[in-house]
Amino acid sequence: MTTYDTVSFLSDYGSVDEFVGVVHSVIRQLAPDAVVIDVAHQIPPHDIRAGGLALARAAQYLAPGAVLAVVDPGVGTSRRAVALEVGDGAAVYVGPDNGLLAPAVAMVGGATRAFELIEPRYQLAAPGPTFAGRDVFGPAAAHLCAGVPIAELGPEIDTASLTPGMMPITRQEGDLLFAEVLWTDHYGNLQLNVDPAEIAQHGDRIELRFDNRVRTGVRHRSYANVPTGEVGLVVDSYGLVTVAVDRGSAADELGIGTGDEVVLVPIPDDGRPIGVVAPVTLREKP
Amino acid sequence: MTTYDTVSFLSDYGSVDEFVGVVHSVIRQLAPDAVVIDVAHQIPPHDIRAGGLALARAAQYLAPGAVLAVVDPGVGTSRRAVALEVGDGAAVYVGPDNGLLAPAVAMVGGATRAFELIEPRYQLAAPGPTFAGRDVFGPAAAHLCAGVPIAELGPEIDTASLTPGMMPITRQEGDLLFAEVLWTDHYGNLQLNVDPAEIAQHGDRIELRFDNRVRTGVRHRSYANVPTGEVGLVVDSYGLVTVAVDRGSAADELGIGTGDEVVLVPIPDDGRPIGVVAPVTLREKP
Amino acid sequence: MTTYDTVSFLSDYGSVDEFVGVVHSVIRQLAPDAVVIDVAHQIPPHDIRAGGLALARAAQYLAPGAVLAVVDPGVGTSRRAVALEVGDGAAVYVGPDNGLLAPAVAMVGGATRAFELIEPRYQLAAPGPTFAGRDVFGPAAAHLCAGVPIAELGPEIDTASLTPGMMPITRQEGDLLFAEVLWTDHYGNLQLNVDPAEIAQHGDRIELRFDNRVRTGVRHRSYANVPTGEVGLVVDSYGLVTVAVDRGSAADELGIGTGDEVVLVPIPDDGRPIGVVAPVTLREKP
Repeated sequence: MTTYDTVSFLSDYGSVDEFVGVVHSVIRQLAPDAVVIDVAHQIPPHDIRAGGLALARAAQYLAPGAVLAVVDPGVGTSRRAVALEVGDGAAVYVGPDNGLLAPAVAMVGGATRAFELIEPRYQLAAPGPTFAGRDVFGPAAAHLCAGVPIAELGPEIDTASLTPGMMPITRQEGDLLFAEVLWTDHYGNLQLNVDPAEIAQHGDRIELRFDNRVRTGVRHRSYANVPTGEVGLVVDSYGLVTVAVDRGSAADELGIGTGDEVVLVPIPDDGRPIGVVAPVTLREKP
Repeated sequence: MTTYDTVSFLSDYGSVDEFVGVVHSVIRQLAPDAVVIDVAHQIPPHDIRAGGLALARAAQYLAPGAVLAVVDPGVGTSRRAVALEVGDGAAVYVGPDNGLLAPAVAMVGGATRAFELIEPRYQLAAPGPTFAGRDVFGPAAAHLCAGVPIAELGPEIDTASLTPGMMPITRQEGDLLFAEVLWTDHYGNLQLNVDPAEIAQHGDRIELRFDNRVRTGVRHRSYANVPTGEVGLVVDSYGLVTVAVDRGSAADELGIGTGDEVVLVPIPDDGRPIGVVAPVTLREKP
Repeated sequence: MTTYDTVSFLSDYGSVDEFVGVVHSVIRQLAPDAVVIDVAHQIPPHDIRAGGLALARAAQYLAPGAVLAVVDPGVGTSRRAVALEVGDGAAVYVGPDNGLLAPAVAMVGGATRAFELIEPRYQLAAPGPTFAGRDVFGPAAAHLCAGVPIAELGPEIDTASLTPGMMPITRQEGDLLFAEVLWTDHYGNLQLNVDPAEIAQHGDRIELRFDNRVRTGVRHRSYANVPTGEVGLVVDSYGLVTVAVDRGSAADELGIGTGDEVVLVPIPDDGRPIGVVAPVTLREKP
């Protein structure tokens, strides 16, 4: 039997209310020897995609154990509460089956088994139905740390039935690479859904089109190497292409953020973009 | 002798400065085996009522041990620093005697004994008098975890002399139930000081009057069951009636927040409010 | 060999992204028995001075062990990553050599030895070069807790070569004491870089000049003793002179904040400032 001693906890509970502390308190009593690590709690409320991306960025660094993730706009409806075993038991992801867990679980190799959390004796009775982190997910993570086998938490379900995550992919049209801002971090850096391999044939300077404007991005090895006034393209600490400015916020500088489209166009050595530039209609973002 | 291994910590210290971390550090050195759980630290500065309500919401879920609460606008004055034993020693609430601890202590059965924290050897000497969490309350909680009996922290005082908490109660005038928003949570849900029993005789639709406006609230079993565009009335995870909208902020939608008045009026099946509607003068909120 | 069991962690990573949680996770795996205490993570991005001051305020209260501090605008450049031993091994400060660690290290007696963190086997391999807290500093702090001698982390360097901190000092010109707001805390209190000894000869009332305005500050023993409407001068919990108003924000009341200049002028008993008042040109702040 695998036992776990760490709960890695991500949610959209915010840091103002006592939600996070109450879940910690519940875990403390059910699994006194477990350590709870707060991964992030300021996921925008109900933003499953943002939560899923944050969890995926963190996934490969998390300690083995239970991973507790709660961004759950469907709480109280028929959406399933699940525990997903990964790495044949190296970790168990616990949360709602709404796509939140999918990107991180995929990142660490996919779910080897899945269970629905319906066994009442591993849940807290609640005066109302709405605090699943406290009453369902937190207790499940804690009981896993206390040695309860995952199969006791509820019936096994088909991993193929799990809600997939929604990850935006890039689209190549001629010379144009249509990308999207995946994440605007605390410093205002704009992480794109672009692997460096996708622009390996581009030069050091790449045209960036966004929000009906155009800027030239220049590749640099680190944020601090971007000269003042220049828009830098840096491979970030997760291995993705990121738009950055030195000691400032690229998000403020460019006026765009998470979910916005950025089109990357190669620039030849003489400074003009390579090939014929097709007219671009930028998609409206919701 | 009871020993404790958990300190549950709530304050208005905020998350920007190093106040919370310094109190953790002090406890770490005085009680190396204690685990500190952060319940909430973004109580609005000096807002004793908000802190007391947050602590009361969390109280029944907190791990046995020391509960450290600091919202203390009177620090440095003659207000007493106290330790309140509850459940004959199941837990000890440590904080200022200004009403902050009262709602939570009442929630868990009341104080069985009370002591004033004046014993200097269980406090830190400070260059100034103003950081009681670091110098008085934190050390008291830590020493309790390290095995110091509560009676050594200072003289016993009469529990009847403790400052009571101020909890707003509802008021019934004819058909009108005058209620108040107790708490606006992170998602914008508006928790009222209304027990479901108080509106048990009302129908599924209840008229809500607030800020010189009127909306119809409709009862639902969970937040996610509230249809888009509708104002829902949900029994929240603490067992109180809460105004909510689906995947949005009721506070933004209705333009009200904590401390504001909401009047609930029954609506008969034909859609008109039951009985004679008295003219209502909404109280000004400070 | 000294081993440590606590990592005290300060950064400008903010509380929104998963940066802090990922560093916790890395430490958890490299040093499972270490406890990580979050000192502060909302240092303004890239603000080395603010981070250095916060760390210095906390320093004397931190548990013995590793102190991990990351405010690092030069990440990815040639700035050195260092580990500074203090108190002949009582603690080790780990972070960038950019002045961030200097004030705290000075506060606890100065560095007894210094080492540059370049040994790859005590670092994580990263897909990009930019997350030094996760890949370099966090692992160094963890390995120190796991028993790795500081000298194995890299070559010893001259403590005299370390980047000094920049602390503003007061300036006396005749009767005028030119001071600066070091820190605006969560409550809006304005901590000045003024030791009480510097105004020991002043009376209870001191003229404050700032931003082309003048107010009278009155000394009080605690924040709560400042009467409503009055501007108080209180020796704060760090032993420095602080401008405060009762249950409100002095920063809002006076319209100034961190980095702004305040000139203190003695007031004689008859209410007029002592001596000849020189015309003052307030310095522009960057």
